[in-house]
Amino acid sequence: MYRIPDHIGIIPDGNRRWAVSKNMSKEAGYVFGLNPGLELYRLCKQLGVRELTYYGFTQDNTRRPHLQTIAFQKACVDAVRMLEKEDANLLVIGNYNSPMFPKELLPYTKRIQLGNGKIKVNFLVNYGWQWDLNSAFINYKNANVNANILSFLPSADISRVDLIIRWGGRRRLSGFLPIQSIYADFYVIDDYWPDFKPEHLYNALEWYSRQDVTLGG
Amino acid sequence: MYRIPDHIGIIPDGNRRWAVSKNMSKEAGYVFGLNPGLELYRLCKQLGVRELTYYGFTQDNTRRPHLQTIAFQKACVDAVRMLEKEDANLLVIGNYNSPMFPKELLPYTKRIQLGNGKIKVNFLVNYGWQWDLNSAFINYKNANVNANILSFLPSADISRVDLIIRWGGRRRLSGFLPIQSIYADFYVIDDYWPDFKPEHLYNALEWYSRQDVTLGG
Repeated sequence: MYRIPDHIGIIPDGNRRWAVSKNMSKEAGYVFGLNPGLELYRLCKQLGVRELTYYGFTQDNTRRPHLQTIAFQKACVDAVRMLEKEDANLLVIGNYNSPMFPKELLPYTKRIQLGNGKIKVNFLVNYGWQWDLNSAFINYKNANVNANILSFLPSADISRVDLIIRWGGRRRLSGFLPIQSIYADFYVIDDYWPDFKPEHLYNALEWYSRQDVTLGG
Repeated sequence: MYRIPDHIGIIPDGNRRWAVSKNMSKEAGYVFGLNPGLELYRLCKQLGVRELTYYGFTQDNTRRPHLQTIAFQKACVDAVRMLEKEDANLLVIGNYNSPMFPKELLPYTKRIQLGNGKIKVNFLVNYGWQWDLNSAFINYKNANVNANILSFLPSADISRVDLIIRWGGRRRLSGFLPIQSIYADFYVIDDYWPDFKPEHLYNALEWYSRQDVTLGG
């Protein structure tokens, strides 16, 4: 039996390196990340995870070559289309006042119930940590209420992350929800994301079960 | 030859677990972290590291039993006394408007040159990520200038962290400079901090040399 984290963050890295390792062009890798994402969602739902956040793409990522940008934008739209057939309380979050944000996803920038809802799924699309923080600063400056400062983040509806799993071997957050990730346990898988297998998740959960939760105390 | 990071963050965790493993009381562990800290500083200076940040203690930590709080406060004061005999551009940073902040360290809350200076050393003492961010929000709200929002952080004088090394096996940031650590590579050593040996640093640098630097791109 695992101690199941309430909220898991997913950094599905390594699509391009996977494609290159298969003699494909880099941008061809993203589409192979779609089925893993769906499989992982179903496993988490089954295990009773309450909230799941996927790192789609960031504003930093949009500096990449045009062919890649188009490919990961399309993959994000397709991922939402796949999720529409499932149960989820979906929120797509990122800077939607930008041409980089796929306009097909605008209807999901307010949380929406798909199927019977229940599991919260957050999808970071054209997300930027600077955008998230800068917006919070500006919202706070313009507000007249005395609320918790972090409630002014555009991402305020996303809870604290308990466990972050990153594929592709890199041991860094790369701007993934810096505030919500303050106390998160960080588990890295060397395999590339398109090579996802359920054991990756189980190993991460088994490891997470052995960590203490101190919230910095 | 290593690719030397400009700025290394040090999370010297495991003092209490080390003490318990030696049949000592938990709070007895902190003093054994002092010499490792000095040794690490000297190695980094020699290697040409430009900036070094130590996680002293946090506001979260001050919820611990009184004996422990006294012990880690004293260890931080002693660490600064040891560093005074070396060369460093020292900044002690944390919420100094609190009785938890050791008043002996107040003179160091503005950056001060010790010896011939050169290497920047930052020492987080009674630091809190909430304190850092909340202060920035309030400073920004009260300011009339149009500067970069992050320049309003009390920790704004601390640069981006390239490599974070954490002792004691835990794979989490625990509130360590969340903004400066956005792109940091994160290296975890299972040994407890009082068991520091130079190989730990060399292994971390060897690993860091093999990472690419993308800054999220």
